[in-house]
Amino acid sequence: MPKLLILSREKNDYRRLLESAGLADLEFADDTNSCDIVLGEPKLIQEALPHLTSLKWVQSIYAGVEPLVDPAQRHDYVLTNARGVFGNAMSEYVFGYLLFLEKKMLERMQAQKARQWQRPESGMLRGKTMGLLGVGSIGSHLAGTAKHFGMNVRGFTKGSEETPQVDQYFHGDELLKFATGLDYLVSVLPRTKATDQIVNQAVLDILPNHAIFVNVGRGNSVDEPALVNALNENKLAAAVLDVFDKEPLPEDHPFWTTPNLYMTFHTSAISYPEDLTRLFVENYNRYLAGKSLKYIVDFEREY
Amino acid sequence: MPKLLILSREKNDYRRLLESAGLADLEFADDTNSCDIVLGEPKLIQEALPHLTSLKWVQSIYAGVEPLVDPAQRHDYVLTNARGVFGNAMSEYVFGYLLFLEKKMLERMQAQKARQWQRPESGMLRGKTMGLLGVGSIGSHLAGTAKHFGMNVRGFTKGSEETPQVDQYFHGDELLKFATGLDYLVSVLPRTKATDQIVNQAVLDILPNHAIFVNVGRGNSVDEPALVNALNENKLAAAVLDVFDKEPLPEDHPFWTTPNLYMTFHTSAISYPEDLTRLFVENYNRYLAGKSLKYIVDFEREY
Repeated sequence: MPKLLILSREKNDYRRLLESAGLADLEFADDTNSCDIVLGEPKLIQEALPHLTSLKWVQSIYAGVEPLVDPAQRHDYVLTNARGVFGNAMSEYVFGYLLFLEKKMLERMQAQKARQWQRPESGMLRGKTMGLLGVGSIGSHLAGTAKHFGMNVRGFTKGSEETPQVDQYFHGDELLKFATGLDYLVSVLPRTKATDQIVNQAVLDILPNHAIFVNVGRGNSVDEPALVNALNENKLAAAVLDVFDKEPLPEDHPFWTTPNLYMTFHTSAISYPEDLTRLFVENYNRYLAGKSLKYIVDFEREY
Repeated sequence: MPKLLILSREKNDYRRLLESAGLADLEFADDTNSCDIVLGEPKLIQEALPHLTSLKWVQSIYAGVEPLVDPAQRHDYVLTNARGVFGNAMSEYVFGYLLFLEKKMLERMQAQKARQWQRPESGMLRGKTMGLLGVGSIGSHLAGTAKHFGMNVRGFTKGSEETPQVDQYFHGDELLKFATGLDYLVSVLPRTKATDQIVNQAVLDILPNHAIFVNVGRGNSVDEPALVNALNENKLAAAVLDVFDKEPLPEDHPFWTTPNLYMTFHTSAISYPEDLTRLFVENYNRYLAGKSLKYIVDFEREY
């Protein structure tokens, strides 16, 4: 009989949801050495790895699984991550911030404070071009929302071209061609060796001055000092950052006070236990039936 | 040969766009008494009405045509207004402000200013219920965007039920039933006798305390003192107002300083000459062919 260990700060929520899902044959384990399945947060699971002597399958409740793909860790089990559940939240976040900037909301608030009937013209998403760095499950969702708003969409990927809402794909050495003329550059890239500092000086230089950069992927993909310079010199209109190379962001980091830099604090997409439970149940039934699981992480590829 | 007079502050843009559209037989008039067609802003056209002795058709570049439906004015011509061109802009405005509020952008900016890594949970549009007061061309577009974001949509109309993206329709004396439990109430109503103060004390009372009210229709539809009270007493989470009973808003109006009231200044949807020219060209070809024009205003109904 399969034994599940839950390693999450929301353990009680997951337990309640899973119990009411009535999964066949599932037993809840309280100790590490008897369980074959673990559901939870990658960092907590990493800490438990040495004691998980019967481990066969880990379902991460996050998309990012850096602590587990880490080459220093064991990789003798099937790791599945959370996919297909963050698209809605990411779309709301990315388009929310783009609209906040295009509609000049801060300026209008200042006009209100000054009791001035001012009418600076708003920008429109319609007709603008968004470039997606990474077009997996989240990138596809963003592309769909961009098309809903009448935008053009470019995608930069290793090689995949699976999303019909992407108008034009770029790969490999076409990064600067991809970035040329973008109104918005949005990174949804995972943290891997291949994504390190992909948004570098050359990319920032080639973006138009009116461009907005949004990072909802991982902080390693950005040359942070180069981004600070670009914003300080008005070579970029704004940056919206949910993720950072080091989190929490160090207190003395220049980002805190860089002009036109809007930071949120790794909150763009929350893992809702309801969504993750649905995903776990689907994979659990596959596990029981001996079928291949969904969203298997490639330890070599690191995502 | 049809003679067109353009009465708009963007007259030169319209002239250039219409000339390059190469319309059959169209002559541009510079004086009021020889033209049979007028394209322009309702207020400017109202002023010219007494001199428009050959007038047959007016194409308004705005959706709102109050100066022309005014019972004191002549109504012996065909009036068409701008429809089908503001949906994109209105969706960007309405969902931009809803996301601004749900994503707690101001709180996050304050946290950034204080160099604090804070993670208040964001709200989601997904799963929320929007009520549309008025479901014409703009309301339909808003309903489509709401469905894109996974929302439930209610519509309050006189009687029409033509938009498939509206899940549930309400009419007549069902206004309070319509408002019950809404997360967002959005008015796109035109200014008519029938829409006066439709968002009254009773409607504001029945909305949940967490509800957000957005007005992109006309200011007459709101009981403004009742709205100020509701916001002062936290009986409503926020109001986003693009339109007001008197515009520009008087300097001593309480709205300027009402908490959680965000005002823009009748900027939610701009008339772009490119869009309006496309609409004019379509109607002009119908006019030449003796066909019925699109978007005819009913002077009695006032829209």
